[in-house]
Amino acid sequence: MEKIKIGICGYGNLGKAVEKEIAKNEDMELVAIFSKRNPEQLQTNSNAKKVNVLEANLWQDKINVMIMCGGSATDLPKQVPEMAQLFNTIDSFDTHAKIPDYYKTINEIATKNNKVCIYSIGWDPGLFSLIRLYSKSILPEGNTYTFWGRGVSQGHSDAIRRIKGVKNAIQYTIPIDSVMEKIRSGETPALSVTQMHTRECYVVAEENADKEQIEKEIKTMPNYFEGYETTVHFVSEEELLKNHSKLSHGGFVIHSGKTNQNKNNHTMDFSLKLDSNPEFTASVLIAFARANYKLQQKEDYGAKSIFEIPPYLLSNKSLDDLRKNCL
Amino acid sequence: MEKIKIGICGYGNLGKAVEKEIAKNEDMELVAIFSKRNPEQLQTNSNAKKVNVLEANLWQDKINVMIMCGGSATDLPKQVPEMAQLFNTIDSFDTHAKIPDYYKTINEIATKNNKVCIYSIGWDPGLFSLIRLYSKSILPEGNTYTFWGRGVSQGHSDAIRRIKGVKNAIQYTIPIDSVMEKIRSGETPALSVTQMHTRECYVVAEENADKEQIEKEIKTMPNYFEGYETTVHFVSEEELLKNHSKLSHGGFVIHSGKTNQNKNNHTMDFSLKLDSNPEFTASVLIAFARANYKLQQKEDYGAKSIFEIPPYLLSNKSLDDLRKNCL
Repeated sequence: MEKIKIGICGYGNLGKAVEKEIAKNEDMELVAIFSKRNPEQLQTNSNAKKVNVLEANLWQDKINVMIMCGGSATDLPKQVPEMAQLFNTIDSFDTHAKIPDYYKTINEIATKNNKVCIYSIGWDPGLFSLIRLYSKSILPEGNTYTFWGRGVSQGHSDAIRRIKGVKNAIQYTIPIDSVMEKIRSGETPALSVTQMHTRECYVVAEENADKEQIEKEIKTMPNYFEGYETTVHFVSEEELLKNHSKLSHGGFVIHSGKTNQNKNNHTMDFSLKLDSNPEFTASVLIAFARANYKLQQKEDYGAKSIFEIPPYLLSNKSLDDLRKNCL
Repeated sequence: MEKIKIGICGYGNLGKAVEKEIAKNEDMELVAIFSKRNPEQLQTNSNAKKVNVLEANLWQDKINVMIMCGGSATDLPKQVPEMAQLFNTIDSFDTHAKIPDYYKTINEIATKNNKVCIYSIGWDPGLFSLIRLYSKSILPEGNTYTFWGRGVSQGHSDAIRRIKGVKNAIQYTIPIDSVMEKIRSGETPALSVTQMHTRECYVVAEENADKEQIEKEIKTMPNYFEGYETTVHFVSEEELLKNHSKLSHGGFVIHSGKTNQNKNNHTMDFSLKLDSNPEFTASVLIAFARANYKLQQKEDYGAKSIFEIPPYLLSNKSLDDLRKNCL
């Protein structure tokens, strides 16, 4: 059987994780890693060719699916529209508010170039979106709650690092247990995200910095911390590196829905507990790369969200096998 | 907008639940209820027409999707092949071992008659199958565990009722908490179902029956109770009806998978806590009836499992709306 030829574009945490995890999929073969950096300087961990992204056009016929591993802030909005002209792509674009526009851009390019481009894949957006869709469709009279954490929020950590006097910082988003229990017991309160999560910050201050002022600036920062119950711990650089460098994350989607004119309650509860956020996200991207390849066989081109992918396309098993052993 | 015209075939617990829950779906209309019984004698709770199932052929053009609500033991294997010649169907056939043959039969009829027949829909087979598929496809190095309960097993209750001296009985299947905790903490033991569940029986004995003998017969019954930790409680008929008539159920699918050469663990955990098993199953069938209708528009005929249905077809929202508010 011909293997699915995979390319990786972007060699940070996510790209490295895709490189590591792809080997366990017998139907796939990692062909090349594309980077903005000089390929000579790239220290990779596989036999994949190292290619400067500017020469990607030479690889058009050698890659079935390009897994886009850049960040959502600046990389993906620039790179995916470029690469989608040459390759079938899959990405983890996760800026929720910008997804509709992002879709429009990618869909136009994918349709014009007969490419399959699966976008916003991962766990949120991704698996959590799926659970929200199934839950709301099955129990339309109900409320869906999404909790994130316990895990590091990169955006919030960055925001703290921009404060004057801060040398380094890590911020954890933490779901509030008592609120989760309420929802799991069938209550359907109206809640904002600030009422569902607390924020815990570990901050390395510069020498002689005004710690009181830093703490105040964090806690009152609009959009990021204002309204949340926030705790600030000042720690040494060594302690931060030793105890707060893990990439673990997770979260919960809980849907509480009613039937029989509100007499009966049903709780649908999905949770993820991840030792490594990039390695799990990489695993999701790899499974959807398989789906991408199968959609190409059907000539079903365009930009696709997780909502449009028939689930069996993710598996390397036949439908006969799945009917027998998984259904 | 034209509403989706729904028929119900079979008017037991499940059929009654579909009748109740369908009203909350603005895009659907319950047209008729088909029963083996004399329609005059049917006490229904809606304005739907009551029709003898023998006259179903007269309703071929008036129903878009027929929701098959009979039992898996005898009703569905007989009724679905008949109805699939006339209607697009959806059913909850749940005899796991017989699914491949069942599929073959239905698929032949559906294909020949240009019908969409979605089979084995509910929560297991159904939503649990989906979670198993997504989990195994995303983290192929891992183990998936399915727990059922706490809830009444109809088959096991029936088996007890067939014992001499037993007047009535209810059997609960109960997942073992300590085993679930082990798996949630990342362990991946090899386990049989008997090691994952206990069985609790509430039995009404006939007067002068040999209770010791009944208890022994239950606990040693092959396939049903042998190998399980089983508890038997003898209760009065009144107590059974008062405390053990609820139709609540639930269960868990937990997948524990590894990345980075087993260094990191990831737990995907899906659970259902249902006050009413038939009302929840009805809600799942109704959402997939919508998907059935949309597949008809695409002329995508044949027998389909939950694995083949693109998730967005379950929703009454547009893809634009889902991209914006659900992804």
